Amino acid sequence: MKSKINIQVALNNISNHFSPQIIGEVNDVYIKIVKILGEKVPWHNHKGEDELFYIVKGELTLKFRDREVHLKEGDLYVVPKGEDHLPIAPKECWVLLIEPKGTKHTGEIEFERTVAEDEQHWI
Amino acid sequence: MKSKINIQVALNNISNHFSPQIIGEVNDVYIKIVKILGEKVPWHNHKGEDELFYIVKGELTLKFRDREVHLKEGDLYVVPKGEDHLPIAPKECWVLLIEPKGTKHTGEIEFERTVAEDEQHWI
Repeated sequence: MKSKINIQVALNNISNHFSPQIIGEVNDVYIKIVKILGEKVPWHNHKGEDELFYIVKGELTLKFRDREVHLKEGDLYVVPKGEDHLPIAPKECWVLLIEPKGTKHTGEIEFERTVAEDEQHWI
Repeated sequence: MKSKINIQVALNNISNHFSPQIIGEVNDVYIKIVKILGEKVPWHNHKGEDELFYIVKGELTLKFRDREVHLKEGDLYVVPKGEDHLPIAPKECWVLLIEPKGTKHTGEIEFERTVAEDEQHWI
């Protein structure tokens, strides 16, 4: 990351949903942005990695096996490692993600929407 | 971190400047919030740790030995490990910090405003 980046501008330039883009790194973690719309990824977990969601715009529901967490603009939530979760956004939601390098965005579950880390381009 | 936290509300509740508060952790990094006003910390660097600044509200200037970076609301910038820097905010600025656990907020320089990590309370 050589220069500053504006989160809103960067998110505005993303056209695909559920396709995280890397915008920065802090030692062992990546900072990513992603647009979420609908309910299009399967239940999954990240065995060894916590995953932080920060809502830049819109609303997001994180379903867990035993509860639901509703997030609005400005809310921050950390999904603990190993816990099954399912993100759902009835309307488009802009999200900042912070997760350790090597985290697969759909956990160990590969499906048609899974984007390999080397395809989560730097912007 | 057991529940969601709203960044704006949490920052609104902080009264001290240059006193980072921990609000979450993602594996080996802490998520902190801090209010900055004026030019009150000395030049410093973090030898082994990158430090991410995300501007929640206001404007911040990061001075480096060879340049200045001006950040506005929504801007994100990573200060590379080892690089001397000095944060300045003529008006109050609300900042989200992401940095590895163990990072001292004024680097190796101890001065009257240095807040030890065990005093950077969880909120």
